[in-house]
Amino acid sequence: MDQQPRWERAAIVGIGLLGASLGLALQERHLAGSVVGVARRAETREAARRVGAADEVTGDLAAALRGADLVVLATPVLTIVDQLRKIGPWLAAEALVTDLGSTKSAITAAAGSLPSPERFVPGHPMAGSHHSGPAQARADLFAGATWLLTPSPKTSPECLAQVEGLASALGARPLVLPPELHDQLVAYTSHLPHALAVALVRTFQAVEGEHPNLARLVAGGFRQGSQVAVGDPAMWRDIFTTNAPQVGAALASLRRELVALEAALEQPERLEAMLRDAAQARARLEQ
Amino acid sequence: MDQQPRWERAAIVGIGLLGASLGLALQERHLAGSVVGVARRAETREAARRVGAADEVTGDLAAALRGADLVVLATPVLTIVDQLRKIGPWLAAEALVTDLGSTKSAITAAAGSLPSPERFVPGHPMAGSHHSGPAQARADLFAGATWLLTPSPKTSPECLAQVEGLASALGARPLVLPPELHDQLVAYTSHLPHALAVALVRTFQAVEGEHPNLARLVAGGFRQGSQVAVGDPAMWRDIFTTNAPQVGAALASLRRELVALEAALEQPERLEAMLRDAAQARARLEQ
Repeated sequence: MDQQPRWERAAIVGIGLLGASLGLALQERHLAGSVVGVARRAETREAARRVGAADEVTGDLAAALRGADLVVLATPVLTIVDQLRKIGPWLAAEALVTDLGSTKSAITAAAGSLPSPERFVPGHPMAGSHHSGPAQARADLFAGATWLLTPSPKTSPECLAQVEGLASALGARPLVLPPELHDQLVAYTSHLPHALAVALVRTFQAVEGEHPNLARLVAGGFRQGSQVAVGDPAMWRDIFTTNAPQVGAALASLRRELVALEAALEQPERLEAMLRDAAQARARLEQ
Repeated sequence: MDQQPRWERAAIVGIGLLGASLGLALQERHLAGSVVGVARRAETREAARRVGAADEVTGDLAAALRGADLVVLATPVLTIVDQLRKIGPWLAAEALVTDLGSTKSAITAAAGSLPSPERFVPGHPMAGSHHSGPAQARADLFAGATWLLTPSPKTSPECLAQVEGLASALGARPLVLPPELHDQLVAYTSHLPHALAVALVRTFQAVEGEHPNLARLVAGGFRQGSQVAVGDPAMWRDIFTTNAPQVGAALASLRRELVALEAALEQPERLEAMLRDAAQARARLEQ
């Protein structure tokens, strides 16, 4: 698992923050002989060229895949699902295919339509930030991150090991889990905080209508808690729509905790115990 | 309002992050001839001495107030209420009294028990962070912050102007508003994000019981959204208990937004419009 994987030609489809960072990392670590990036929009291609995310940047998906022995799909989830259904004829027989999508059940299921589903390894590096687009790309984006992998029963162990090796080579820590469990857990650790940030901003907007000075009263906690709401709307639309039941369950759990907290608002001792417990639990997460 | 106020002896009662930062700032800007800090706990006094938060640090409140012409109460809200009821006999006749408490209705009402309520100016600098205690104190903590002031009908305009001058001298921007409106608005901009952070941590803990690996799946959005939950439990207990109805109203507004968001989870176009709107509104807040 610690061997350095090496590919002749890596194709990265979608060169936003994650895709462009992967391009930089593959080049910096000499993991690919050449890197080709694919983006539909001309301005994304231009930005990707500017940061040097790939040796070559194109809008032609079929041409980019030709001869690629590593293919990484780094577009929003539903675009990945769509691409899995259509790239089959363009893939080289020996191509290892993986993706960086944030939900995994829909993607893992869609891989069945590939000519060699055993060579597809669904992946999700827990990296990135509220920024989007290639301009903020960094070769070390994946260092220290957990890189989740959700193989289907068809995925070959050798291909899984190769993607684990890729993750390790980029400084990330691979973790294998079933796609359904992945989607259940990230609903709590990633999708729920995003939903809360959006709801916090919307609540603010409703009050700001009556109190135009409200922005002057924004505290640091508000800034932090709402920060991720600036994330790419199309990416998050796909995350939520492909994981709606799990996000709904996480929102229901959170609402129960809000009710418990509200019930304690006028019970100083109980409230302080809850606050102290949460403070300690949050502090442990820093480690 | 731009004149530099100047005091012979400033007493800062409570030398946590805010109190100690004020001590550093008063000294650095030569706004006070001497600064005395008051803390009940020996370890807080020791930490305050270590960062140089005051010329003198003591546990004797009565002695510290003797001869002070500026008194700043920087303890948790209910401690401030308690202190306002008891410090009267120890205050110099010419002392200007202010506070840094995070809710203002209870404090503004309690000032009626002072011998000279006209010389009390309730204040709330929107500074600080999730850190607590004097160790993180910084003389520039108030630079750029909004410093809210909630005078009662008894507060004299001269005293109000002096505290506005103090805020300006420290680089903050004073903003005067009624105490009830203050408490209503900060419920949204400060207390609500704290309650959400605590609820997010508690939701995480409930799931972690069944999935011990959950911490490895924590995304940046979760870290940011839950960050403030590490704040001082005693301080936040007082904030919530003295502002329970307003925090309850803010939680109710937020729950409505969560319901609206959940209803859109499987409606891609409507969802994307909501996400885009929130992203733009949040981005405007950066300015």
